[in-house]
Amino acid sequence: MTARIYVKLKPEVLDPQGKAVSGGLRNLGFGGVKDVRVGKYIVLDMDDAIPVTEAEKQVKDMCEELLVNTVIEEYEFKIDH
Amino acid sequence: MTARIYVKLKPEVLDPQGKAVSGGLRNLGFGGVKDVRVGKYIVLDMDDAIPVTEAEKQVKDMCEELLVNTVIEEYEFKIDH
Repeated sequence: MTARIYVKLKPEVLDPQGKAVSGGLRNLGFGGVKDVRVGKYIVLDMDDAIPVTEAEKQVKDMCEELLVNTVIEEYEFKIDH
Repeated sequence: MTARIYVKLKPEVLDPQGKAVSGGLRNLGFGGVKDVRVGKYIVLDMDDAIPVTEAEKQVKDMCEELLVNTVIEEYEFKIDH
């Protein structure tokens, strides 16, 4: 079972890495880019024996306890069985 | 128009950050996690005037020229119009 977690900074939090990437893209001639945000993409390989509802609960707990700084970041996740 | 880019290390490349996260999750009691890979999640806000086929080409070029180290990383992207 695979859980894919997408973590990004909250919209009101400044993203210096995104700003740097945005500037880099413009310098390379990609003028159509208005804004860039850089976050984390975490892929968890989980034991298939765990029921999906239990896995969802566990992934939520993992995010809140370790993977995501909920003060400045927000997250979504998907589980493929 | 929003382009979402998911970058991860190629499967054969060692991921020390993923290993550290995996160990951390196990220490917190999440025993069902077999493997963790940590990648990047990049969200581009692009000019709506660009046709989707052109945007797809541009995002591919951005990935290969700046956003992704294609020697060790692989990527996928989605564009929402």
